[in-house]
Amino acid sequence: MGGYKIAVLPGDGIGPEVVAEAVKVLGVVGKKFGHTFDLRYADFGGAAIDSSGSPFPPETEITCMNADAVLFGAVGGPKWDSLDPAIRPEKGLLALRKAAGAFANLRPAKLFPELADACYLRPDIVANGIDIMVVRELIGDVYFGEPSGIEVRDGERVGFSNMIYREHEIRRVARVAFETAMKRNKKLCSVDKANVLAVSRLWREVVTEVSKEYPEVELSYMYVDNAAMQLVRNPAAFDVIVTGNLFGDILSDEAAAITGSIGMLPSASVGGPDTPGLYEPVHGSAPDIAGQNLANPVATILSLAMLLRYSLGLAAEADAVEAAVADVLAAGYRTGDIFREGMKRVGCSEMGQLIADRV
Amino acid sequence: MGGYKIAVLPGDGIGPEVVAEAVKVLGVVGKKFGHTFDLRYADFGGAAIDSSGSPFPPETEITCMNADAVLFGAVGGPKWDSLDPAIRPEKGLLALRKAAGAFANLRPAKLFPELADACYLRPDIVANGIDIMVVRELIGDVYFGEPSGIEVRDGERVGFSNMIYREHEIRRVARVAFETAMKRNKKLCSVDKANVLAVSRLWREVVTEVSKEYPEVELSYMYVDNAAMQLVRNPAAFDVIVTGNLFGDILSDEAAAITGSIGMLPSASVGGPDTPGLYEPVHGSAPDIAGQNLANPVATILSLAMLLRYSLGLAAEADAVEAAVADVLAAGYRTGDIFREGMKRVGCSEMGQLIADRV
Ligand SMILES: CC(C)[C@H](C(=O)O)[C@@H](O)C(=O)O
Ligand SMILES: CC(C)[C@H](C(=O)O)[C@@H](O)C(=O)O
Repeated sequence: MGGYKIAVLPGDGIGPEVVAEAVKVLGVVGKKFGHTFDLRYADFGGAAIDSSGSPFPPETEITCMNADAVLFGAVGGPKWDSLDPAIRPEKGLLALRKAAGAFANLRPAKLFPELADACYLRPDIVANGIDIMVVRELIGDVYFGEPSGIEVRDGERVGFSNMIYREHEIRRVARVAFETAMKRNKKLCSVDKANVLAVSRLWREVVTEVSKEYPEVELSYMYVDNAAMQLVRNPAAFDVIVTGNLFGDILSDEAAAITGSIGMLPSASVGGPDTPGLYEPVHGSAPDIAGQNLANPVATILSLAMLLRYSLGLAAEADAVEAAVADVLAAGYRTGDIFREGMKRVGCSEMGQLIADRV
Repeated sequence: MGGYKIAVLPGDGIGPEVVAEAVKVLGVVGKKFGHTFDLRYADFGGAAIDSSGSPFPPETEITCMNADAVLFGAVGGPKWDSLDPAIRPEKGLLALRKAAGAFANLRPAKLFPELADACYLRPDIVANGIDIMVVRELIGDVYFGEPSGIEVRDGERVGFSNMIYREHEIRRVARVAFETAMKRNKKLCSVDKANVLAVSRLWREVVTEVSKEYPEVELSYMYVDNAAMQLVRNPAAFDVIVTGNLFGDILSDEAAAITGSIGMLPSASVGGPDTPGLYEPVHGSAPDIAGQNLANPVATILSLAMLLRYSLGLAAEADAVEAAVADVLAAGYRTGDIFREGMKRVGCSEMGQLIADRV
């Protein structure tokens, strides 16, 4: 029994709806297990731009930094797409990740057996299952590298962004990946483009050095282009993947897409011991279906389970949430994105309630 | 009727076998259409490292630059993987592309109707067909950007590679992409990461400028992570994709993989009017099956068709080669990689002969 501070950032598009359902579930967890969750809502993303001119205002940063963990929905939408990049919703997300020191982004791409027919791959490939954990470095690489900009040189515009990694940045995320592999099937695949890029050669060198500390983990290397292929051809061959920020952005989305259940996939971004972990669904803000009770809240509810497990150390509570999700799926309830003939179609809030009822 | 000089670079692994079959087909094209093809073989890749210490020796460069077009197989293999990156087989490939000024890499990802069951995607998605042309910029971006290296700074190693594009580099490949779209379904999707990267913002700006010259082409933009998803979810939505070197490397391999027929896919890399075009299969050197008459020569034979069409302007000859390939597939002949029950299994040289016989 304990009291926990959680910063809640609903964000844009379907963000507020799916976060509301996760909060509903959290309420039940609190009652059932006797915890107090002190929720502190803050503006973020497009919503914050509208109210204060910045996607990640100082008050939001303070709220987040004082919390044990941050739960958020999604950011962005056409309304803010034409804004100066420096104050776009995405900038807020990057600033939040950086402020929280959240260098390791854990993105599971898992096929739920009940949703196997939603998978985009051929049934004989699906039959082997998909259960991949992508560990993506989150606060380095070309996302934050300097110099970066657009300049006129020799009479023409030149755009440049620096793909850069420091040894310690690679080492710390590699450790998280090896630790993750130790808790799973002890297979780690490090993805880079070391046949072309200097930055990737350092990546590979440092990962190889860290591997000495984990002799039980079977380490392999793959070029990013080949990884993009193998995810389609034989996803069952992967256990844990570790890679840089940009390659991780692409490959984790590809891996999520093949499961066919992007509305189901959570993510955790964790960093140092003194900074809050960030928890968010893998999907985006889906402005086209926002406010219509159509969104699938499961990814956010499973993100909440990760929050309970990783940031608060509440494993039994996390298990209860995950089991409730599995129950509801087994009982045939589906939001529109995963609906199939013969199943029971429900809206976002009904789905949240069904899960909350089963915790 | 004419005489043409073609540089032939068999390269490593299965390269020599598949190139031999393309040469067989070219011989028949020459006889049937009354052309003289003057073939000039040159060492390249690992084979060249072994014979001369460099993956792209000066004599090979001269041979290529004096040719009307270059046909090559594949490079690389475990034998050369531990070499200093500066003299690895891949370096030769990059140097050849640069020397030839081959800034536009055309990579079709097409589902052959006869091979629809080899496709890795769900049958209901395959039913919509896949016919995508990826136009990848090939001699810029982080592949060639400076500064690049590994250095010690503040007591730790730092690896960096510069993702950089100049206006004219974007403009020229964008034009090729728009021209390509004009000959197809007039839909172009430009892929970047403009919500995060300065270099991508310039990319998007310049592509938008070029689009004014092609009012008939419907231009859309997509972030690279989303493109990696949409290729799996709805590949039929794409016609032509234009993107930078790195994103193109990843997405064209993903697009090729979903067709399930990577042994079937050709590519062309073209540049200025005075430099030779380069033609190569999309697949790699497959050292594990090299020298066993198991490789699929179709990708190289279709690369030859692209060579005839784009570099030599021999459209009827290219059509004849493509029709011969379609005939052989329709007749049920398959190499091991695309073999299915009920088909006739053949080796690399038989496949080449069957196609040559039907030209
Ligand atoms: C919105 C964008 C900045 C972000 C990223 O690229 O990291 C998103 O794609 C993600 O993967 O969380
Ligand atoms: C071998 C390698 C350098 C090359 C590339 O990355 O361009 C290959 O992957 C390709 O796509 O042709």
